[in-house]
Parts: sequence; C-alpha cells; structure tokens
Amino acid sequence: MKLIFEKKSFLDSIIKVQRASSQRTTLPILECILIDAKNNNIFLSSSDNELFIKKQVEGKIEEKGSVAIESKMLLDIIKKMPEDEDIIINVNENKKCIISSGKIEYKIMGKEEENFPPLPKFDKEINIDINEFTFKNIVNQTIFSVATNELNKTLTGECIEIEKNILKIISLDGFRVSIRKLVLDKEYNKIKKIVPAKTLQEVSRIIDGNVENNIKIYLSENNIAFEFKNTIIVSNIINGEFFDINKIINDDYTTKIKINRKELLESLDRFMIFSNEKKPVILEIKQNILNLTLQSLVGELKENIQIQKSGNDLMIGFNSKLILDALKVIDDEIINMYFTNSKTPCYINDKENNEKNNDYSYLYLILPTNIIKN
Amino acid sequence: MKLIFEKKSFLDSIIKVQRASSQRTTLPILECILIDAKNNNIFLSSSDNELFIKKQVEGKIEEKGSVAIESKMLLDIIKKMPEDEDIIINVNENKKCIISSGKIEYKIMGKEEENFPPLPKFDKEINIDINEFTFKNIVNQTIFSVATNELNKTLTGECIEIEKNILKIISLDGFRVSIRKLVLDKEYNKIKKIVPAKTLQEVSRIIDGNVENNIKIYLSENNIAFEFKNTIIVSNIINGEFFDINKIINDDYTTKIKINRKELLESLDRFMIFSNEKKPVILEIKQNILNLTLQSLVGELKENIQIQKSGNDLMIGFNSKLILDALKVIDDEIINMYFTNSKTPCYINDKENNEKNNDYSYLYLILPTNIIKN
Repeated sequence: MKLIFEKKSFLDSIIKVQRASSQRTTLPILECILIDAKNNNIFLSSSDNELFIKKQVEGKIEEKGSVAIESKMLLDIIKKMPEDEDIIINVNENKKCIISSGKIEYKIMGKEEENFPPLPKFDKEINIDINEFTFKNIVNQTIFSVATNELNKTLTGECIEIEKNILKIISLDGFRVSIRKLVLDKEYNKIKKIVPAKTLQEVSRIIDGNVENNIKIYLSENNIAFEFKNTIIVSNIINGEFFDINKIINDDYTTKIKINRKELLESLDRFMIFSNEKKPVILEIKQNILNLTLQSLVGELKENIQIQKSGNDLMIGFNSKLILDALKVIDDEIINMYFTNSKTPCYINDKENNEKNNDYSYLYLILPTNIIKN
Repeated sequence: MKLIFEKKSFLDSIIKVQRASSQRTTLPILECILIDAKNNNIFLSSSDNELFIKKQVEGKIEEKGSVAIESKMLLDIIKKMPEDEDIIINVNENKKCIISSGKIEYKIMGKEEENFPPLPKFDKEINIDINEFTFKNIVNQTIFSVATNELNKTLTGECIEIEKNILKIISLDGFRVSIRKLVLDKEYNKIKKIVPAKTLQEVSRIIDGNVENNIKIYLSENNIAFEFKNTIIVSNIINGEFFDINKIINDDYTTKIKINRKELLESLDRFMIFSNEKKPVILEIKQNILNLTLQSLVGELKENIQIQKSGNDLMIGFNSKLILDALKVIDDEIINMYFTNSKTPCYINDKENNEKNNDYSYLYLILPTNIIKN
C-alpha cells in the first residue's frame, strides 16, 4: 500500500477518528486506527467494540491496501511532521510501515486488518435530521446529570425519546433530572432509546457544531448511528427501561420566583468555597428577596438577591453545585423557579416564555437537601 | 481593624503574596496571609519559613490592626467578589473577620499575628540592580537543569556568582550544565551564593518582567533578598560548596558545527516519540550533513539536517530531551555546537558571536550517552 496525504487534513482526521480507539484494552488491535485503501477511497476507522468511528479522508492512492497502526503513535508522528510537506505512507506485505515527509523517515510495525472489528450494520429507516449546532447544545445542556456510578446501567446514558415531531433528551442521576426538547421538522412514530453518555460526548466533540450543517441520526433495533461530513459513528445502545420521569414531574407549585440567572449563578458560585463540608446553602424566599445563607465549620456566608415572587414564602436547602450545573447551561437572562415545600423538588423551566404552546424547551428538576433538624 | 480595598489590585496582591504560604505544613500559621495595618500602611505577608514575601498594598485604613487569614480561603473569597464594588475587611478583637462587598458578607475566623514569622533581617550593602525582564530570562534559561533529587542539596539550587562586573548563574544536574552570563553596570568584589530553585522560580513568577523596571538583589551572609515594586522577598540560601564547573569546562574541541536551531529542535522533538525506551538519538556528523537516527523496540526514525562543519567527522549519542531543553531557551537562529569525541560533552555557546570580548553569554554542556557496545 502506498498513500499520499496533505498533512493538515490528515492530522485533523486522525484527531477525530482516534477518539474511539482504546488505550486500556487486552485487544491490541483496538488501540489502532485502521487505514483502509483497498478500493478507490481511503477510510480511517477506530473502535472500542462499543463505539465505531469511520471517516473517509482525502489522499492519493498509489497502491491499494490496508493496515492498522497504533493510534497514539500515528497521531504523535503526524502531529510533529513539517506543516508544508506531504506525508507518504508506504506499507509492505509484512505490514512494515514507512511514514515519511521530506528527509524524515519513520519505520514502525503495523498490524493486519483481519482482526479489526467491522462497522456494525445499521438500519436507515428511522432517520432524523438535526442541526449540528443544536445537537451539540442539547447534549451539553443535559449530559452533566448522567449518573456516574454503574448501579443502574440505564442511568449512565441519556434517553432519547421521539414522539410525533418532538425529540426529548433526558438524563438523571439520583439528585436531579435534565430535559431538553426539540421540535423536529417532521413526525415520527414513538421511539425511545438509551444512548451511552460517552457516545454522545464523543459525537458532540467530533462534530464542528456549525449552524449550517446537519447531522443525520439513525435509530435501529440495537444501535444508533450518526452521519455527518464523510463520517459515520455507530454505537451500541443500553438495553433496559429508562426511569419513567412522568412519575415524578408535575406542574404543581405554591411558590414561583423570577430571578436573574447570572446573579444567582455568581452567588451560588461563592457558596462553593464552603462546599468541602457538603453543607447546604439555605434559600429563604421572603417577599421580593431571596436570602442565601450557609454555615460551615470554617465560616459563614450570607447574601441576598432581588426577585419577583408569587405564592408563599419558603425556606429550602440545596447542594449549590446541583443548581449551578443547570444555571450554567441555560441561556435565558431571567429564569422561573418553582417550589412547593422544603422537601419537594425545585423546577426550572421556560414554559411561561413559550406562550404559543405553553410547553417547555428545557426543564431542570433538582432535589432539595433536608434542612430540618430532627 | 477595618480596611477597605479596591478589588482588582487587592486580588492581584493576594495572588502574588500567597505563593510563599505553605499548603502542607504542621504550622497552621504558615498557611495564612498576614494582613498588617498596625501603622499607616497596609502590608500582606506570607512565608513557609524558607521564603518570605512582603508587599505593601493600596487600601484605606479605617481602623488599625492585624490579622492572619488562611491564604487559599482569602484568595477564593476575593476572587469571586463582584468586580465593581469595594471590599471591606472588618476584624474584631477575637479575630472574627467579616469580609463584605455590597450585599455579600463572609464571616470567617482569622488568627493572631504573634506566631507569624517576621521578615528576616538582611544586609543592603551588596546590592545589584538587574532589569526585571533580563532577570526573568536568565532564570528561565537555566533553571531546568537544577538537580531534582536531594542527594546533593547544593545542586537543588542555582549558583549566583559575581566577579567584577560579571554575574553568572549556573545550574547542573548529573547530565548537563547551564550557564548564563550578564554584564552588570558596576564592579563588585567576588561573591558566590547558592539560591534555592524554588526561590528563583517564585521571584521570576511574581515580577512582571517588564523591560522598564529593575529588581534589586541584596546578598547577605545567610540570605538573599529581592526588592521590586513595593515588594520584598527574602529567602534562605543553601549552605555548602557548589560544584566547581571550571574542573569540567574547557575550550578544546575537534569538531564544530553551525546548525539552524529551530530545525534541530523540531527534529529532536520528533525523536521524543520513542523516548519511553530511553534509547539515545545518534548524531552522525559527516561532511556537511548531520544524520540523526534512533532505533527502538517499537520503531525507527532517521532524518538529516544541513550543517556547516569544521574539524573531524563524528558519531555520538544523546538523550534528546537534554539537548531539547537547551535549544528551547536559546534565542539565536544559528547555533554553534562543539564536540571532541563520543565520550566527552557537547558544548553549545555563543562565544563566536561575541567578537568584542570572545566570551560567551550562554553555555550549555550536555553529556553524551554511551553508544559503544562492549
């Protein structure tokens, strides 16, 4: 095999494709990037047997063939090659690779393609078109509340639920729920899949997130596939039933406040100074003032923020980080927060802003911390 | 005590002063910044009992006094305060501190000043003026070859040697020597001190490095002090005799090459890909070509660079990192490298560029790796 690449585009492709290759694996082939030029196009692939990335790359085929090269080494070698010279990859029958550029010549051993996992088959029947920018956003705006322990495998992924023309992406750990809703441009039959958090993170990292490009999502029985710019990513889905959030989410409330998001965010961030002790920040809603206080072994902090309140006064405690995480991914300048009592969750959503359909595009549910001393 | 500060300048001062405060110490007072406003000025100090930093800061004294506050907490609190409001520090007799800004109010416990180590006395007789920019440079250009293990305590510092109007700063570990020379604007009696690497690093970090400012260095019997912009840093020196470099440095050579620094640097950086195995890169000087090669278990690399050679052809091996470290801190576009044989050090210096006095302003000595198989 003999291939010629332009450095910059080849390096960009390697950086993207190598993300699925494993660094800690008992199967050395999974540490590799497969360079496949058996036919008239060149493809780079990597896989950890759960996530598969395959990307067509620019380059000239002088002699057809294929080889698997340890991905970290390939990345290091190409990264340090001179910017302005072509890169030539020459592989003999024993998979000895000569990677050269001008006067520079690396010799390393490659591997046979035969043990490299093939791209899983996927069904193109259910396919959804989403703007790259929007996709990247809804992932980043929900992924932080995916459960990190494996006690319940289904919660380590995000639930993607489609009904009619609405796509919902949901994540929850034991302390909160994050939901983003998206209006699609056509209607679908009801479908629900749990996608591993890692898959969504990698896809969102690899796509440019350009408003002008779309990403195609294919939902099959056993996997999910993403197609964009000469790239296909296929991932296993997580089997099992996702927690039914309708059981816990409701519209009731007795206290509602309108508050400046940035002011609350900066305030809660100051409370993080005492976060070591896991003491809750106490929110006291009284007339049109939100008083925030925290008492820890090393110190105390109190401050207050002007709000618009309707309903009852209330005192409730939270782990400031849980509210902070939600505030960081909301764009609205003024947000609505809904409470019932000190033992029931707080809701942050934009239902009121969407007068047209009285539905939310985001909803964050956060459980309070018990502040009543027994 | 009651003090009022403008946030930005107070924060900047804390960031600088806290660098001497210890995080791991059995003496809690050393984790603190001392705020001293007993007289008509406000000073911040910190110390780990080896390094002492004292800085006068802007601020309004409404009530005189002093308090020591845990430095990481003080930094965190001030960092997150609003940009546009003044910060008020109010301390009662029991050292309870209220740190407030607008509607924000922290309460934390401070400590008595009494156990805080005082700034050590230092002698102002021998004082040297150096441009901040130059000082920062000569430290960064030599500090990387300070010994990191404590087998020989003197080598964990840099030797500062002054003779007539020449200041020399020298560091060496077991594998190389780095020297920078500086012409001072007046003459001094011969003096030699070993300064802990940490001290030089911290001073070089804290000074702005502005070409227009000078730093004053005071050399006393038992310590070294630095004075700049309302700040005094005093440090212990390391007792003992520094290795006499004149024993190993000489002017003899049988091979000299002129080479483009950036080309050699980029080339050696590529050899770092195989650095895990600690195999040497082999330099073969042959006519006007420098061939570089490395053979490791996972692969090989060879490349070559055009050079201007005088003297004998030569083959010699090096740990690429040792040469790289020196190349990174040299500014010259073309450098001279001097060799004698495969078992004696390589020298990089700029003697030839300084026609006036035929002396170097920098000298890097690097020991080769044995490449002759027994």
